[in-house]
Amino acid sequence: MNVDLNSDSGESFGSWTMGDDAAMAQIVSSLNVACGFHAGDPDVARVTCRAAADAGVAVGAHVAYPDLQGFGRRVMDMAHDELVNATIYQIGALQAIARASGTRVTYVKPHGALYNRIARDAAQAAAVAEGIASVSTDLPILVLPDSEIQKAAQDAGLRAVPEVFADRGYNPDGSLVSRREKGAVLHDAREIADRVVRMVEEGLVTAVDGSDVRVSAESVCVHGDTPGAVDIARTIRRGLDDAGIEVQSFV
Amino acid sequence: MNVDLNSDSGESFGSWTMGDDAAMAQIVSSLNVACGFHAGDPDVARVTCRAAADAGVAVGAHVAYPDLQGFGRRVMDMAHDELVNATIYQIGALQAIARASGTRVTYVKPHGALYNRIARDAAQAAAVAEGIASVSTDLPILVLPDSEIQKAAQDAGLRAVPEVFADRGYNPDGSLVSRREKGAVLHDAREIADRVVRMVEEGLVTAVDGSDVRVSAESVCVHGDTPGAVDIARTIRRGLDDAGIEVQSFV
Amino acid sequence: MNVDLNSDSGESFGSWTMGDDAAMAQIVSSLNVACGFHAGDPDVARVTCRAAADAGVAVGAHVAYPDLQGFGRRVMDMAHDELVNATIYQIGALQAIARASGTRVTYVKPHGALYNRIARDAAQAAAVAEGIASVSTDLPILVLPDSEIQKAAQDAGLRAVPEVFADRGYNPDGSLVSRREKGAVLHDAREIADRVVRMVEEGLVTAVDGSDVRVSAESVCVHGDTPGAVDIARTIRRGLDDAGIEVQSFV
Amino acid sequence: MNVDLNSDSGESFGSWTMGDDAAMAQIVSSLNVACGFHAGDPDVARVTCRAAADAGVAVGAHVAYPDLQGFGRRVMDMAHDELVNATIYQIGALQAIARASGTRVTYVKPHGALYNRIARDAAQAAAVAEGIASVSTDLPILVLPDSEIQKAAQDAGLRAVPEVFADRGYNPDGSLVSRREKGAVLHDAREIADRVVRMVEEGLVTAVDGSDVRVSAESVCVHGDTPGAVDIARTIRRGLDDAGIEVQSFV
Repeated sequence: MNVDLNSDSGESFGSWTMGDDAAMAQIVSSLNVACGFHAGDPDVARVTCRAAADAGVAVGAHVAYPDLQGFGRRVMDMAHDELVNATIYQIGALQAIARASGTRVTYVKPHGALYNRIARDAAQAAAVAEGIASVSTDLPILVLPDSEIQKAAQDAGLRAVPEVFADRGYNPDGSLVSRREKGAVLHDAREIADRVVRMVEEGLVTAVDGSDVRVSAESVCVHGDTPGAVDIARTIRRGLDDAGIEVQSFV
Repeated sequence: MNVDLNSDSGESFGSWTMGDDAAMAQIVSSLNVACGFHAGDPDVARVTCRAAADAGVAVGAHVAYPDLQGFGRRVMDMAHDELVNATIYQIGALQAIARASGTRVTYVKPHGALYNRIARDAAQAAAVAEGIASVSTDLPILVLPDSEIQKAAQDAGLRAVPEVFADRGYNPDGSLVSRREKGAVLHDAREIADRVVRMVEEGLVTAVDGSDVRVSAESVCVHGDTPGAVDIARTIRRGLDDAGIEVQSFV
Repeated sequence: MNVDLNSDSGESFGSWTMGDDAAMAQIVSSLNVACGFHAGDPDVARVTCRAAADAGVAVGAHVAYPDLQGFGRRVMDMAHDELVNATIYQIGALQAIARASGTRVTYVKPHGALYNRIARDAAQAAAVAEGIASVSTDLPILVLPDSEIQKAAQDAGLRAVPEVFADRGYNPDGSLVSRREKGAVLHDAREIADRVVRMVEEGLVTAVDGSDVRVSAESVCVHGDTPGAVDIARTIRRGLDDAGIEVQSFV
Repeated sequence: MNVDLNSDSGESFGSWTMGDDAAMAQIVSSLNVACGFHAGDPDVARVTCRAAADAGVAVGAHVAYPDLQGFGRRVMDMAHDELVNATIYQIGALQAIARASGTRVTYVKPHGALYNRIARDAAQAAAVAEGIASVSTDLPILVLPDSEIQKAAQDAGLRAVPEVFADRGYNPDGSLVSRREKGAVLHDAREIADRVVRMVEEGLVTAVDGSDVRVSAESVCVHGDTPGAVDIARTIRRGLDDAGIEVQSFV
């Protein structure tokens, strides 16, 4: 039995630090590395790819809207070609940095506002999928289950890997509890770790109303951008190790 | 007999236009395509690479300091690693755009202030050479003859291709006449074309003092950023065609 | 009888040129000067403000979303405080540049996607109005008639000056014909000039269906970003001069 | 007896945090607020100006080279007009933000590579001084003693306020010990506080060779960008309070 743990990384910028990439590289199996559009720069990307190479974890291109100040969290109305080409540019830049660091980009994960937008906007989803496929149809993409991007990726000949979220509450229909509602985010490390183990072993997670929801846990997204988040990630990893579940990239 | 003609291209940005890339793609054999640091963006790069692919001309990564407002013409004191990684990032981004456009990056040419700086600064030259070699030692670099970057490139296992300038005056020692002095830039299309033909056929150019200077004309840099420049480039091309000299990439 | 003519200006950036600010400064009474977020930079703003000062025309802060590559034409989901502070920052930067150039900022005009968004989005409209009022309630704002920003400006204690468009078609209800439909943009200089004169003299414009629509023409927006646009602007100005209508700022 | 304590602030950017501006606002009398070129953005500047207004401390425009990724620490060869206009733009932007926050900009302090460059480069010094004077000759500038910018500021009709550094070693000639040499930076809070008190009370500091050096301590620069730095700043402030020295802005 095995599962992938993925985490955002390489999100420092210039003199500013975010997260603890070195620590997370020891915990997860896949690092979503920022490509310089929402965060990261060539130096940060290089250091992060080296850490990934040293730890033997997979490198994903964490593509985003071009918005450093907004950290890629503000929806932008980009035209089709703009989004296709921005996707290609970011993947290519990270591919070269990764190769120079002794590793390579093996998947793509869209970031922030782009991730959420392409879950329900078929047009932007098609653009991102086309961008990835223009680089290589051998690059899987991490997606929200049952999303527009999942369809678009498959239409473009890409493997779409649905992911689950370690610390998010689920509605009975399998969707995430909105951040505006109670139960949206879980904070207890032990509880989160137990949920992840159950998602992998049984393909089930307990929804906010107490019912069981079926989930497909090929990859689990964990956070690492705060000291508390790193501790939770470690607890999840330990829980998986104790349960005899191997943590490895989905690629 | 043959020679390469190279020209800067892809230097539009967003809504702003510069040069006539489509026209130049019909004239030269190598387009130095901006990578988004001094000019260009993913969309401009895509259109330019497509034009290069359609015309069958080579694509070079026109790497630069990260300075859009200054168009890469302001020297920046970048640290070694910063310059290495900026070089890798730019080449990689353009490689992906080029491949998506049906072509590929076959060489590198540094731009503007970086080009001039690495002609005489061994430290920055070594960083640029290391950056290129980290991507691939199969990527030649266009250089100023007898420059620090020529040495650094060779030390890094790269092929360094010295270039001559179609419209620049030469000193008797083979160096370029400073732009602050008389005779720095030639303006007569016919005269420029004749000089280029002689540089290729005889390996000689007439210096400002009337003496002959030996030059190695593997590649000739021509400008295309003004309507007048495009006309001069056409005259050069016609001159070479009439002389039976084939215009083709040095790669 | 008098009317204001306003035109976008200062939209060059670094080495890239757009429009002919010097020519337009001789034609209009108000220049909407880019503040560096969608276009312009400190040098371009300085040159444009000097041209405005020399010609004795008013300077407006042409505030925009922070998006150089997209020229401020892509809607961005900025939070309330982000938009308030971005508005203040841009006006302040231009105020200092204007004062150093012997003039001052006397009004504000939002640009591009922001202009269109705040015409119908009350939340972003309130943010822009709050930003302007935080700088000074003595700064009028140019607005689309019957828009959310008109209401928000008035609520914030600002004078809202509705503008008409010289070269746009009007629907019978006074709204602009969508750019996706026939008749959206007029191209005949003489016809455009005649319409502008009638808008000023009679407060009427002929709609696409031939009916007359009542408009309040305190300020007329004219374009100047192409050679053809400058010619049209000149024809409008001549038409107003010939009709004895004085062209002067609304401030 | 009194002295000014100044500290860099407002150097967070978007989602990235740097320093503890709220804490420093309680310790120093002058906050050098980043203007968005090397760090800071409209939102960060607003929050920082509010903290300054609440604490009753002075706000200075911390002008810099336009280089977010390099944090303004990389020398850039900007032309005279570019540097003049960049200075004006930054001061103006911060003036508007400060006024909207219930305070105002009362001085200027150049940042990082620009600070060091204009200490010895008369041309760039003259440009910065011209920029400030173009905004107002009532804005003093904090300078390195016996520097080119001190002369240039005075030539431009500005008050130049020489500052001393709380935690830097001094050579017998009054210059700072190079960061490449031993004794460049002091780390003991108590020792640093004692030095500052002596600089204010006696106008003397002990140089690296044990000799006494005369210094003019109108303003003392203290750091606040690390937890340790904030503690040292507090110890300095307590030392001054205990010695009966009032901490207040030099304006």
